[in-house]
Parts: sequence; C-alpha cells; structure tokens
Amino acid sequence: MNVLVLHGPNLNLLGEREPEVYGSVTLEQIDEMLEAEAKTHGASVKTYQSNVEGELVTRIHEERKWADVILINPAAYTHTSIALRDAIKGVGIPTIEVHLSNVYGREKFRRHSYIAPVAVGQVSGFGPESYRLALLAALGLEGGA
Amino acid sequence: MNVLVLHGPNLNLLGEREPEVYGSVTLEQIDEMLEAEAKTHGASVKTYQSNVEGELVTRIHEERKWADVILINPAAYTHTSIALRDAIKGVGIPTIEVHLSNVYGREKFRRHSYIAPVAVGQVSGFGPESYRLALLAALGLEGGA
Amino acid sequence: MNVLVLHGPNLNLLGEREPEVYGSVTLEQIDEMLEAEAKTHGASVKTYQSNVEGELVTRIHEERKWADVILINPAAYTHTSIALRDAIKGVGIPTIEVHLSNVYGREKFRRHSYIAPVAVGQVSGFGPESYRLALLAALGLEGGA
Amino acid sequence: MNVLVLHGPNLNLLGEREPEVYGSVTLEQIDEMLEAEAKTHGASVKTYQSNVEGELVTRIHEERKWADVILINPAAYTHTSIALRDAIKGVGIPTIEVHLSNVYGREKFRRHSYIAPVAVGQVSGFGPESYRLALLAALGLEGGA
Amino acid sequence: MNVLVLHGPNLNLLGEREPEVYGSVTLEQIDEMLEAEAKTHGASVKTYQSNVEGELVTRIHEERKWADVILINPAAYTHTSIALRDAIKGVGIPTIEVHLSNVYGREKFRRHSYIAPVAVGQVSGFGPESYRLALLAALGLEGGA
Amino acid sequence: MNVLVLHGPNLNLLGEREPEVYGSVTLEQIDEMLEAEAKTHGASVKTYQSNVEGELVTRIHEERKWADVILINPAAYTHTSIALRDAIKGVGIPTIEVHLSNVYGREKFRRHSYIAPVAVGQVSGFGPESYRLALLAALGLEGGA
Amino acid sequence: MNVLVLHGPNLNLLGEREPEVYGSVTLEQIDEMLEAEAKTHGASVKTYQSNVEGELVTRIHEERKWADVILINPAAYTHTSIALRDAIKGVGIPTIEVHLSNVYGREKFRRHSYIAPVAVGQVSGFGPESYRLALLAALGLEGGA
Amino acid sequence: MNVLVLHGPNLNLLGEREPEVYGSVTLEQIDEMLEAEAKTHGASVKTYQSNVEGELVTRIHEERKWADVILINPAAYTHTSIALRDAIKGVGIPTIEVHLSNVYGREKFRRHSYIAPVAVGQVSGFGPESYRLALLAALGLEGGA
Amino acid sequence: MNVLVLHGPNLNLLGEREPEVYGSVTLEQIDEMLEAEAKTHGASVKTYQSNVEGELVTRIHEERKWADVILINPAAYTHTSIALRDAIKGVGIPTIEVHLSNVYGREKFRRHSYIAPVAVGQVSGFGPESYRLALLAALGLEGGA
Amino acid sequence: MNVLVLHGPNLNLLGEREPEVYGSVTLEQIDEMLEAEAKTHGASVKTYQSNVEGELVTRIHEERKWADVILINPAAYTHTSIALRDAIKGVGIPTIEVHLSNVYGREKFRRHSYIAPVAVGQVSGFGPESYRLALLAALGLEGGA
Amino acid sequence: MNVLVLHGPNLNLLGEREPEVYGSVTLEQIDEMLEAEAKTHGASVKTYQSNVEGELVTRIHEERKWADVILINPAAYTHTSIALRDAIKGVGIPTIEVHLSNVYGREKFRRHSYIAPVAVGQVSGFGPESYRLALLAALGLEGGA
Amino acid sequence: MNVLVLHGPNLNLLGEREPEVYGSVTLEQIDEMLEAEAKTHGASVKTYQSNVEGELVTRIHEERKWADVILINPAAYTHTSIALRDAIKGVGIPTIEVHLSNVYGREKFRRHSYIAPVAVGQVSGFGPESYRLALLAALGLEGGA
Repeated sequence: MNVLVLHGPNLNLLGEREPEVYGSVTLEQIDEMLEAEAKTHGASVKTYQSNVEGELVTRIHEERKWADVILINPAAYTHTSIALRDAIKGVGIPTIEVHLSNVYGREKFRRHSYIAPVAVGQVSGFGPESYRLALLAALGLEGGA
Repeated sequence: MNVLVLHGPNLNLLGEREPEVYGSVTLEQIDEMLEAEAKTHGASVKTYQSNVEGELVTRIHEERKWADVILINPAAYTHTSIALRDAIKGVGIPTIEVHLSNVYGREKFRRHSYIAPVAVGQVSGFGPESYRLALLAALGLEGGA
Repeated sequence: MNVLVLHGPNLNLLGEREPEVYGSVTLEQIDEMLEAEAKTHGASVKTYQSNVEGELVTRIHEERKWADVILINPAAYTHTSIALRDAIKGVGIPTIEVHLSNVYGREKFRRHSYIAPVAVGQVSGFGPESYRLALLAALGLEGGA
Repeated sequence: MNVLVLHGPNLNLLGEREPEVYGSVTLEQIDEMLEAEAKTHGASVKTYQSNVEGELVTRIHEERKWADVILINPAAYTHTSIALRDAIKGVGIPTIEVHLSNVYGREKFRRHSYIAPVAVGQVSGFGPESYRLALLAALGLEGGA
Repeated sequence: MNVLVLHGPNLNLLGEREPEVYGSVTLEQIDEMLEAEAKTHGASVKTYQSNVEGELVTRIHEERKWADVILINPAAYTHTSIALRDAIKGVGIPTIEVHLSNVYGREKFRRHSYIAPVAVGQVSGFGPESYRLALLAALGLEGGA
Repeated sequence: MNVLVLHGPNLNLLGEREPEVYGSVTLEQIDEMLEAEAKTHGASVKTYQSNVEGELVTRIHEERKWADVILINPAAYTHTSIALRDAIKGVGIPTIEVHLSNVYGREKFRRHSYIAPVAVGQVSGFGPESYRLALLAALGLEGGA
Repeated sequence: MNVLVLHGPNLNLLGEREPEVYGSVTLEQIDEMLEAEAKTHGASVKTYQSNVEGELVTRIHEERKWADVILINPAAYTHTSIALRDAIKGVGIPTIEVHLSNVYGREKFRRHSYIAPVAVGQVSGFGPESYRLALLAALGLEGGA
Repeated sequence: MNVLVLHGPNLNLLGEREPEVYGSVTLEQIDEMLEAEAKTHGASVKTYQSNVEGELVTRIHEERKWADVILINPAAYTHTSIALRDAIKGVGIPTIEVHLSNVYGREKFRRHSYIAPVAVGQVSGFGPESYRLALLAALGLEGGA
Repeated sequence: MNVLVLHGPNLNLLGEREPEVYGSVTLEQIDEMLEAEAKTHGASVKTYQSNVEGELVTRIHEERKWADVILINPAAYTHTSIALRDAIKGVGIPTIEVHLSNVYGREKFRRHSYIAPVAVGQVSGFGPESYRLALLAALGLEGGA
Repeated sequence: MNVLVLHGPNLNLLGEREPEVYGSVTLEQIDEMLEAEAKTHGASVKTYQSNVEGELVTRIHEERKWADVILINPAAYTHTSIALRDAIKGVGIPTIEVHLSNVYGREKFRRHSYIAPVAVGQVSGFGPESYRLALLAALGLEGGA
Repeated sequence: MNVLVLHGPNLNLLGEREPEVYGSVTLEQIDEMLEAEAKTHGASVKTYQSNVEGELVTRIHEERKWADVILINPAAYTHTSIALRDAIKGVGIPTIEVHLSNVYGREKFRRHSYIAPVAVGQVSGFGPESYRLALLAALGLEGGA
Repeated sequence: MNVLVLHGPNLNLLGEREPEVYGSVTLEQIDEMLEAEAKTHGASVKTYQSNVEGELVTRIHEERKWADVILINPAAYTHTSIALRDAIKGVGIPTIEVHLSNVYGREKFRRHSYIAPVAVGQVSGFGPESYRLALLAALGLEGGA
C-alpha cells in the first residue's frame, strides 16, 4: 500500500509556531514516525509540504498512479480551497483528513471544511498522534471501506 | 485506564439499520472488539447505549469517578443536545467524539456538532474502525494530550 | 395491515390543553376511533404516547417487525428530533406525519420538520380528523405508494 | 356542499410529466374521481386548471358565492404567489392545500408555502389520493373546523 | 397631464374583501374619485385592474406614449414581481407606488418592495385617500421632481 | 386639529446638504409652507427639529395632550431608533412618516424603518411636497382612518 | 400558594460541576433554602430534578392541579426544548424562568430561550439567589400579574 | 432539428427600452436573424414572446412534441418563476438559458436563476449575439451533450 | 451600599403609556418604593431618568465613585446602545438589567440586549416588582458575586 | 488647515476606563498632543467630546465653514449611528476615522462601521498614536486625496 | 485579434478526471481546436493552464499588452479568487467566463462567481463546445460589445 | 528596527491598474519612499511582492528571525486567505495591515478581513501615504504597544 501524506500551509513551522496549540514536535519528526510506522505494516509513505495551494493540487495529480490512499492535513486550505477538493475528487483516491488540533473548538470559520465531504473520514485533535491514527485507518482501508 | 464508551440513539439497531450506510457489524460486536482491544493494553471498558438523551447524561454523571476517558458516538444527539455537551464539560473527563460514517458528506444539519467543541478530538468515517482508532487515541491520552 | 400510531409529547393532555387550539377530544377517544376505523378495513392498530423522545425511538425499533406503516404526530419533536428521523429512516417503514393544527399558521419555528423529508406524506390541520385521514392514506399505501 | 378544486401550473401535464415523481394518472382522471366521490356524499365539485397565476386568482373571485370550500394544489405557485394567498384570505372560504408529492423531500425552496398559513390544513405526498383525502377533509369541515 | 392608474391583483374585490383591513369603498368608486379629482386639475386619467402580472406589464407598455405618470398599487405583486419593476424602469415614466394599508405593519414579507427602488415615491396607509394623495403628488411632478 | 411636525437629525441643514438629493428648499421654508397650508384648513401646526434622538422623544411626550396627529421625518433615526417608536406607540397619537427622498432607492440599511409599523401611513419621495401631502393625509384622518 | 420547582439536566451535579461558573452550593441546599423561604410566607414547595426532557414535561402535567406557579431552571433544555415550552403553555400555570449564571455572557447558542416567551418573567445571573428572588416574584404573583 | 425560442417579459420592448443596457436591435430582428441562421443549418425555429408567466408555461407544453431544444430568455421570470422551471423539467427537452446582458453585474437579486439548474447551459452578456451562440450550442447538442 | 437606579427612554410616561402592558404605577412611585426598601436595608438609592442615550452614559460616569451597584432599565436602548454597554463595562460597577415586561414575548428585535453580556444578571417580567427584586439582588451582591 | 477632532461616547474616561485595553493616556493629553503637532505644521485644531450622538452631529454642522478636515473617533457610535454618517456626508468635509484599539479583534458587532464608507480613510489600533497618524494623514490631504 | 485562453486548477486532468461529468476530451485537444478555429478567423490564440491562483494572475499581467480578449475557465477559483477578479479588472481587457459543466446544477457553493461581475459574459454547460462558443463571442466583440 | 513590507496580488501593476482608484505611483516608488523614510529613522526595510498566496506565507516564515515588524497590504488575499492569517499569528511578529484605498467604500466582500483580527492595527484609504503612516506606526511600536 502506497500512502501519500500532504501537509498544508504553515505546517513547515511545526514545533516552533504557537507550541501551546500545536506542540513541539516538528514536521520532520512526524514524517519519520509515519515512515517507520508504515514500514512495520509493509506500506510505503511519501510526504510533501507546501504553502502553495496549487502545488498541493499538482502533487495530488502527479502521485495519482502511485498513491493508494492520501492523508492530508490541509491546514488553512481546509476552509478556503475548492481546488484541493476538486483534485481529491478528481483523482478518485480515498483520502483521510487530518488535523493536529480540535478545529471545532477554535474560531468559527475553522468549523467548515471543503475537504470533509469528499474525504473518507477524519481524525482530529490528537496532535501528531492524529497522523498515526489516520495512517492506521488508511491501512485498514485496504480491505475496502 | 478506564474507558467509558457511550452509544447514542438508534445505534442499538446497528447491523440492521441502513446497512449500506452503517455496515453489517452489530453494536455488540463493536463492544466486544473494544473490550478485547482494551484488554491487550491493560485498560478497562464499560459500554452503554441509550435512545434517551437524559439517560446518557445520567450515565456520564454516574461514571465520573470511574472513567478516565469517554468515547462517545452521540449519533443524532450530536446535532441537538446541549445537555450532553454540558454533561461532558461538567465532569471534566477527556472525551473523544466518534462517528461511523463521514457526517460531513451527508445532510447539512449533520455538519454541526454541539459535542465537538468540548471534545479532545474526533474520529469519523471508518465504520467500526472509528471506535478502535478512538480507543487507541484514548490510550495515547494517558501521557497527556 | 398493521398500523403503529405514535403520539409525541403533551398529546396526553389532549382535550384539556389549550382546547381553543386543539379541541376537546381526548387522546383516548382518538385511539378508539382509529381502532374502530381500522377494524372496518381489516387492519390492526397499536397506539403509544410518550413525552420522552428516546422512548418513541425505542418503540419504533420494537415494532419494526410488526408494523407495516407508522402514523406519527411528533408534536414538539417534529421540530427538534433528529433521533426520531433516524429511527424512521432506519427501520424503513412507510411513515405518515400527522398534525392536529395547521402548524404553518403558528410560530415560525413550527414550520420546519425534521420528520417530513423521511415521511411518505403529511396530513395537518383537521384536528382528530387528521389522524383518520392519515389512516385512510396508510391503508391506500398497501398497494404501493 | 360546493367544492371548488383548483390545479396550478403544469398539472395539465399530469400523467405525462415526470411520471416517476407524479405517477401516470391524468388530471382528467383525478377530476372524474373527485366528482364521483363528491356525488356519493351529495356534494358538488367544480374543477379548474390554469398555468396563469392571475387566472387562478380570478377564478377564486368568481366562485366566491358558490364555493363552500376550496381544494387547491397550487403547484409552483405554492412557493411564489402572494396573490393567491391574498385571494384565499380575501374571499374567506375555508381552503385545503393539496400536493401530490411530498414537497418536503425535494428542493429546499419547495419547503416554504405562502398558502399554508391561510389554509385550514394540508394533505401531501399521497399522489392522486391526496386530492381524495382532502375532499374527505373538506366534507368533514361542514360541521365546523 | 395624462395619468395611468394601475391596480394589481385582488383589488377588484375592494369593498368586499377583508373590509376591516381595506375599508368598504369599491375600486369603481376610487376610479371615479380619481377621474373627478384629475378633471379639476385639467388632467386625464385611465384606470386598469388585472389579476395577471403580465397583463399589467403589457398595459404599461401600451400606454407608454400616452402616460406622463403612472400610479400603481401593485398589491401582492409589490413583493414578487421583477417583471413589473422592469416594465416601469423600461418605459421610463415617473411612477408612484400606492398602498391602501400600511404594509409595514403586516406580515414580514410585505415589507419588501421590488417596485419602490424604481418609483419616484410612495404613499401608503391612508385607504382610498392614498390614491388621491398620490394623484396630487403626480400633478406636482409636472414641474419637475 | 393640532399637528405636531417633527424633523430628525441633519434636516436643519436642508437646502445646503447634498442639494442634488434633497433640493434647495430650507427647513424654515417647509415649516412656513405647512403653517400656511394648515391655516387654510383651520388647523394648527407646531414644528420642531433636533439632532438628538432623546429630545425628539421628549417633545413627543410634551405635546401628547396638544397634538391630534404627528408628522415625523425621523431621518437617520428611522432606521436605528426604537426609542422613537416606543414614544409614538406610547402616546397613542396617529403618526405619519415622511421622507423627502425615496429611501428605497438608496443604501440597503435605509430600507428598514422602526417607525413604519407604528405609523398610520407613509409619504416618501416627493421632496418638500412629501410634507404637504402628509399634512393633507393628516387632515383627512380627522374623520377616522 | 403551591410552588413547583423544576431543575433541568446536569443541575444534580451542582456544587461539583464547574464550580468557578456555578458556585459550590448543592442543589439539595437550594431546595432546602427554597422550602424554608416558602414556609415563612405560608407557601408550599415541591422540587424535582431530571436529566430527561420528557420527564420534566410529565412532571409539569402531573402537578398541573396542585401547582399555582412554576419555577423552572431548564438548563440546557432552555435552548432546545419546544416540548417543555408546549407543556408550560399547555397547563396554563404562570411560570418563572431561572438561571444561575448570566446566560447572555456565554456561548451564543445560550442566548435563545424557547421558554422565555411563554414565561411570566426571568431571573438570571445571581447564582442560588436567582431561585430565591424568583420565589419572591412568584409569591408576588398571587395578587395577579 | 426544431428549436423553440422563448422570450420573457418586457423583451417585446427591445430596441426601445433602456438601449444603453440592451442595445437598439429589436426582438423582431433577433427572431429573423435566428431563423436565417437556423436555415443555413437545416434547422427550424419557432419564436414566441409573452409577458405572462403562465403563457410561457403553456407554450412550452404545446410545443413539447415539436421542439427538440428550447432557447429561453426568461428575463425577469429567471429569478421568480418556479412554474417555468417545472415546465422545462416536466417536458424533458434540453433547454439553454440566454441573457442579453451580464446579469451577474447588476442588482443582487438578478444573480439567482430558478431556470439554470434545469438548463443544459447558459449564454449571457453578448447582446443579441447571445441568442446566436445559444442556437449554435443547440445545434451542437444534436449529437449529444 | 450605594445603588444607582437608571431609567431609560419613555419610562417617564410610566403609568400613562400603554397601561395594559406596563401597568398604572408611575416612575415616581417606583423610585419611592426603591428608596424605602433600600432604607430598610441601610442602603442609599439615587434615581435618574433620561430619554437621551448620552445623558445616561454621562450619569454613569458621574456616579462611578459613588455607586457600588447599578440597576438599569435601559428600555429601548437595551437593543440599540453600544455606548451604554461601553459605559457600564468602562466604570466596572456591577450592573443589573431590569425590565418591567417580559421582553422575550414581544417583537423579535426586543430579544437582543447589548447590555446583558456586561451585566451581572437580569430580572424581567414582574412589573415594578422587577425593580424591587433587582434591588434585593444588588444587596445580595455586597458579599461577592 | 483647520482640523476638527471629535471624540465619541465614553472617551472622556480615557486613561481610567479599562486601561488594559485603552492605555493610561487621558483625552486631555491627546488633545494637547494634537494641538502641538498641528502647530508645528502650521495647522489649527479644535477638539470636542460628547456622549450624545446628536451633539456630535450638531458640532459637525457648526464647524462646517471652519473645518477643512475632520478626525473622528466615533467610539460606540461607529456601529450604531447613521445620523453621524449623514452629517459627515452632508457637510462634505473629508473625514478620517480613528480608533485607539484594533476594533477587528474584539466583539463581532464592532466590525461594522457606518462611518467608514463615507470616510476618506481609517487609522486604528495604535492607541493615542492613531490620532497623531490620522492628523499626519489629514495634513497630507491638503494637496488632494 | 489576440485571444488569451486561461485554464484554472485541475483542468490539466481533463479527459481523465470524472469523465461522466467532464467528458473524455483532453485539454490539449481543446487548445488545438481553439487554435484551429481562431486561425480560420485570422485570430491568434495563446493557451495557459495552472493550478496556482497567483500564476494565473501573473499570466494575465504578462499578456496585458498582447491580449485583446481573455477566455477564462477559472474552475475552482471561480468561487474563491478575488485576486483573479482584481487582475481581470486591473488590466481592463474584455474577458469571457467559460465553464464546461452547468455549474448551477451542482453544489451550492459553485453558484457564486467572483469573476462574473467583471466579465463581459459567460458561456457554460456545453463541454468543450463552451470554449468554442466563447471564442466566437470573443471574435464578435471586436466590433464592440 | 527591521521592517518587512509585503505587497499582495496585483500590486505589481500599481500605477497602471485602475489609476482612478489606486493613483499613478508605482510600487517601486513606494518601496523607495519607504526605504528612504526608514533610513532617516535608522530602520531597515525589506520589500517583497507576490501574486501567490503561498509565497507570501513562505516569505513571512523566512524573515521571522530578521523582522521586528511586518507591514502587509494583502490586497485580494485580505478577504480570502486564512493561510496568511495563520502565518502572521504563527511567527508572532507585530503586523500592520495597509490598504491604499478605503476598502469599506467598495464591494461588500471587501469589508471582511481575515488579517485584521491578528494585526496590531490598520491604516487604509490614503494611497501610498497609507504605507508611510504604517511605517511611522511601526516605528512607534518599538517602545511598546
């Protein structure tokens, strides 16, 4: 199973940006953890971060032959990007939405997701652990979902 | 670690009700799976289902000394019950919101949750697997969250 | 044909509560009238009233093998209960929504029904006669709808 | 008792237009059924269809001395015509709103009715049977409502 | 000065329809009063009533060479007719909106007028006197406005 | 008949402020015109302008024994003052709302009036002539309305 | 005078739940205080708490012959229960709404009350003292209101 | 291929009404141009204009056997007519919505179309050329779309 | 304890204005009752009424050294005055909102209060008794709140 | 260049009211600073504070011959006063809106300004420095803007 | 005539992405068809696709000297990009909005276009043919529009 | 003090794009002016323009060690970019929002800013001078704010 992991804008600052909200783990550490975890299940992981909406769209296109499942933390683009939604729907790859924080307990505009309706499911609120749980969910999808 | 698992209205019909949406696994099977999974981690699980909003509230009160964490699938009450929200907030126990289906891909009124803002996090869309992932998340909370 | 008749909250006060709006016929009289009417068509009726949302849900579950059609006057729960809607949708039994008064000529919040979209049809505004007409409609459903 | 039956726009196509939604019975057949049913109760029926909002208004005016009750299926004008509402309110004749389909399960704009608040009651969702039930309701109105 | 007076739907029932709201004067009496009043000012009046939105539109078109000013009581079409608005704007004749009753003290949907923004002004709430005042206003427009 | 004429904020600048919208007639000239017009009908007029919402309220109180009718151009307070509305309703004197310009053709927030629902009627859009027509309407109210 | 005191969901936890919001006084202490206070005025008090919406409805029904006035702190059901509103309106007993905290300074959804429009009045924000003041108000209602 | 061309209210004034918005070409000229263009493609055109909503509905019904495609410029009825929408949906003929002006750059209420969701496509903003392009699109539909 | 009692616009008419809503007690009588009641508790009262929003603001400023608590019936300014809210928040004196009538059972715009979120609590619906209860509440605040 | 500086309600308490939001500088100090700064640029300043909306309106009128530019901190009236807006628009003097705090980071109702659309520009969020920057902007307007 | 053709995000997948919605023609084929069509009219075409909002903005800037008209299918950016709107408005080149599908028959958020109000016109719903018709419209613009 | 100046989309066209709105000064001239102004205060300025939302985000990240304050004119991204808001909040550098024009006097969608709530303050409406005033404000921030 091939898993594409996408990180949206500002996640490159993870570990430094508002640590009281997002914790002190870096994105690199999360990527390594996911790669290790995947390995133990015989799966492959590719990770990618961009602050540019269109580059995330493009990456989804480029990996559409390779990826069996997508984990995406769209960050701010969760709430504003129809382009990402169209990309996910367009390639037809099962996608899981991931959030570090509990987006429902923050500003009101963070409660609406353009991605959620085209995703298989969502894991949010558990910090870096959200990614790991989503990976486990992705692996479980192999047998159908 | 003691985990209280609460199932909201209509979940007692699981396996029979709209299987194309909710699958054919029964609630009893989910409860057994959770108990088994918890056991392997040295944790205890109590499960409870009710169609009555107030009985779910009361059960949260009753277990407030015992439970270290709550997994709740509030089903229809997700969208209408401030009483459940107040109960969760009132007992101060970390709570994880669980949904079998991806509620964001269904009717619009299912996109708003009174529970989410007082929950630690959310797992939705993976069928019975949603519960298992939430349990794993709960176990991970032991060391903080 | 087996017809389950469900009465929502406050309908037990019928005949006493706001008679200028709801008339002086009691719920007992309505139930008797429905039983008599059904008998003349060779049909069976079971009636049930509860002020508790979840008990109405449970009763729908319990009668799901017996009932061929449901008549429900959800009263106040018309406007607030997604749990009842899910129960009706979940058991897959054709359901007719009944109202004694013309709900559209009253407060604005009474104009929205969570039940209507999952019901076959609606009869409202004719006092106890609404129930009788709904029963006739139910009998007509036997041959398809 | 004299019953004026009014059919709004596009109902002349009944039996041909979207039969999967509206069935294959024609408007003429409905009119005949209503006339026959009325006869057995010693009542008279006049039926009228128009695609023109103002012609329906005018017909209500013209029959205001004759009609004891109005059955109206305002079709699309249900949601857009204040003129019809004013006509019904203006002549002061008890009016019953009829719909073939369950309007609450369709597009959102079909859930608002300008007619309902000035009607006595409503029957919807039972196909041509909706008309017959409304006629029965109308006959029951004779003794008060 | 030539004054076209247009009466919208249901106004033909004036004097009979809801007299407690609209008074007992008939439309014919209003037309006569306006003709008499106009005569004393050396002006001509043509009056026209229709229940059909499109016929009111057509009449505006037909009189566009003759009329110097239009008095219109659009009644229910005040709130629903963009076609009337377009007709008034299209012929470019100064138009005064007239209402017998104070539309702002009634149902909420009567507070919005599609006509008002393209009218010169409005007189409402004075019963038949509203028309006479509007006529006086129209005559005053002769010298500019 | 005693007529109290009230002018709201900024009307003291009339004739100078935005003449392309409000014309070049001054408030003093309007007051004189109204006094002259009233005299010819044997009526008395008192006029008052204030930029202070509460002073307009107080003046309504003070003249409640004297005034038979109130003409008020509330200007900006039309859209923001519940206090003026309460004052008018409280003294129970028939009140006519006057506007120089057609408020419905301007900014959207000018389309809502707190005063209109408690007024007898409204005259708007005819410049100073709006006041004269409202005075004529007021005189016509003597015999009832 | 007989006073029925009703406490809504989660109030059984009073003194323990979020003490920084609700204080440390228990519900039992409040009930005792109310009984004592009532006694000094020669009045009787019955108190009842339930987490179940429908049980509160039922209790209102059961005490409708006994109670002269109702004090109700509907807690979370303030904002979601039309059934409670209908019960209060249905029995026709003067009812006073009570809140411990100032609900207007909290989440936005707590600012709307289904109960308030059918209550005589409201006391909120003074902790347990809110109940005592409401009791005094209730006693004052004896002579009319 | 048979093409029914429908023109809504006020379009009969084309060439005269607000030429700065709609240009100086008359409706007759447009009809002739369409007939000529159609001829060169071996297609037939019937054109019809009405100011009456219901007459447009009726015409759609009447031509439902003849027409292979409908071009409709619903003008003001674009925004207010559910009856037209139902007629188009009811006859099941592919329909193209046409507008002379760019309706999205005008008043806000012109941005909503009841017709668009049941149309195949839309051409707007090119003056009379909009019709010609829509005709070309219609001809292209022959082979599917 | 020093208590500043503020009465908003139109309250000077109390006893005369709409007595069926507000009763026949005058503001003077209320002030005297409050002074007497306060005296029996060893507290001082200053009362002030103004129809001018800004004068109420100013009075709050002027008494900020003297007053320990404010009772305010903001009347119409409840719903429109952010300036009063800012004044109350600015001086930091505990404030209780008082209403004679149950504002929640009247027009919709009376259901929103700018004052409530910065007040300690609210008493409404008990006529002049609302003030007395608020005074008792104020006295109870001495010991904290 | 003559600069009129207007301060809205509650600003007279500056330096005392909520210093953690508004700082400890007094209004007098701000006025002196502005006068000094203006002097160094050869400009004149008049300052005025009022808690009364209408008095601010009147002051704008009175200075309309003298003032070349207006700096206004409308405080609470920013969000509620159409009268101030009309006054500014009416006198036609370039006006700059000033706020001490960043109004966009506070309550939602503070995000709407009736003044902004008729102002030249806005400076907000810099405490007393906001005034100084606005004065510099005003001076820059001399040469056009 | 020089025509700049811009394709928004995900259009590079055309022919592969959701073919049941968008057809099986590729973007390359559309570009070739447009070039061929333009050639026969003596016009030039440049085509450009990007998934990055800002790159589309930049390309509009770069071609502002060359392009006489722009055809743009903004895809998902139709509904979210004010930057594209500003770019189009900024360069002042007549622009035609193109959509393959009928955006009005899909999700609600696709019914709003930031681009439409600054475009000359719109062609939507005809698949690749939409582009060809837009090109014809563009060529027709040469003589004015 | 190090000042990062960021210019959003389309600002590279400044001086050429809609000069009647934005003036004829170029972005280069603004940058030079800011550098000169900063120099006289011993401060450093770096300027950067991009049409790509994500590149602006990245630049904020890259300069987070260097910059003491950020001046940002987000242009169209003001209203659509949560990513920029998150970047500003994430790096924790005081930020001032700048606009050339008075955004509040333009289209309604320009009145909402995602940036404002996380900015220190805002300067808008003074053309290039807005930048200079913002720079002065930035320099004033050094000593606190």
